[in-house]
Amino acid sequence: MGKGELTRRSILDHAVGLASQVGLEGLSIGRLSDELELSKSGLFAHFNSKEALQVDVLRHAALRFVEAVVRPALKAPRGEPRLRALFERWLDWARGRALPGGCLFVAAATELDDKTGPVRDQLVRSQREWLEFIAGAVRLGVDEGHFRRDIDAVQLAHDLYGVMLAWNHAARLMRDPKADRRARAAFENLLVAARVRRRRTA
Amino acid sequence: MGKGELTRRSILDHAVGLASQVGLEGLSIGRLSDELELSKSGLFAHFNSKEALQVDVLRHAALRFVEAVVRPALKAPRGEPRLRALFERWLDWARGRALPGGCLFVAAATELDDKTGPVRDQLVRSQREWLEFIAGAVRLGVDEGHFRRDIDAVQLAHDLYGVMLAWNHAARLMRDPKADRRARAAFENLLVAARVRRRRTA
Repeated sequence: MGKGELTRRSILDHAVGLASQVGLEGLSIGRLSDELELSKSGLFAHFNSKEALQVDVLRHAALRFVEAVVRPALKAPRGEPRLRALFERWLDWARGRALPGGCLFVAAATELDDKTGPVRDQLVRSQREWLEFIAGAVRLGVDEGHFRRDIDAVQLAHDLYGVMLAWNHAARLMRDPKADRRARAAFENLLVAARVRRRRTA
Repeated sequence: MGKGELTRRSILDHAVGLASQVGLEGLSIGRLSDELELSKSGLFAHFNSKEALQVDVLRHAALRFVEAVVRPALKAPRGEPRLRALFERWLDWARGRALPGGCLFVAAATELDDKTGPVRDQLVRSQREWLEFIAGAVRLGVDEGHFRRDIDAVQLAHDLYGVMLAWNHAARLMRDPKADRRARAAFENLLVAARVRRRRTA
């Protein structure tokens, strides 16, 4: 890795942390230049525009997410243990262990959902990859005999996303001290439903 | 209602719609003055500051939410039918039937969760009231014999919030054509779990 690439990475590390706090719109080359004490022209050499910076920040954040959440969870055995590891690491990520302002993707989702263009496209791409990765982890759980054969893996991935979004709302906005407990209870309910057929009343 | 109050309401109606699209931060007295062709000084007579405007917009949005979601659902019988009515009306609200940019509260939550002050306090207050209202509707379902006696009504309200947040993510960001179906499937799973004791495997 050359010096230029190292500089670029350390700029992006800082920018990802900043964006988690002020949003992608709050990110600007001027602000980065102030905080990093680098010249604006030097920053423009790395990122041609605010939009290019935002795309690169999302891409870099996705790499950090893989490092912090996906890679360690792959050490857990396939199936339910790996899904648990993914969930717990994801919770750590959302808690802001990696980023000061919590999950950048959650904030970016509501920031970008009414917009069009390459920044939104990058976010959608990385979110789709993540949802597909979770669905794949669920399918491995079927292969391992942990989950029902007729499970809808895409639905479970969607539901798990909802659990994390509800955690975000409860912990970050409502400052609910029970947010972790609520998220884990919701996750366990999803697992119970994934494992066994439920009796119906009707 | 006096003329001043009527004017104030129609300004707030417009401001709530605008905030649903551009966020609370994007809302300014200058922008409202342009869009409504009213003088800035006239607007300042109604709202002393941007912050006061933001608080009033959130308060007005909460009234609109009660009109669009809560009041019609109260016509449904207590218990499961009412919870269903609340869910379907809430989905309509999130779809943007009432507001062009979808649910203002969802956007405001990620916008305000790192901030402090009266705007955030107003949002937290109205979100808490809504979560408590859902929990109350669940408890009525227990009284009616629809739901289990040992149900955690606060957890179910939290989980239902997660279902709506996941819908928002799927529909608005991911443009998933199955977003409605996914939300309804998640809701039905919560109801099944609320109705009957589940068998455990272990």
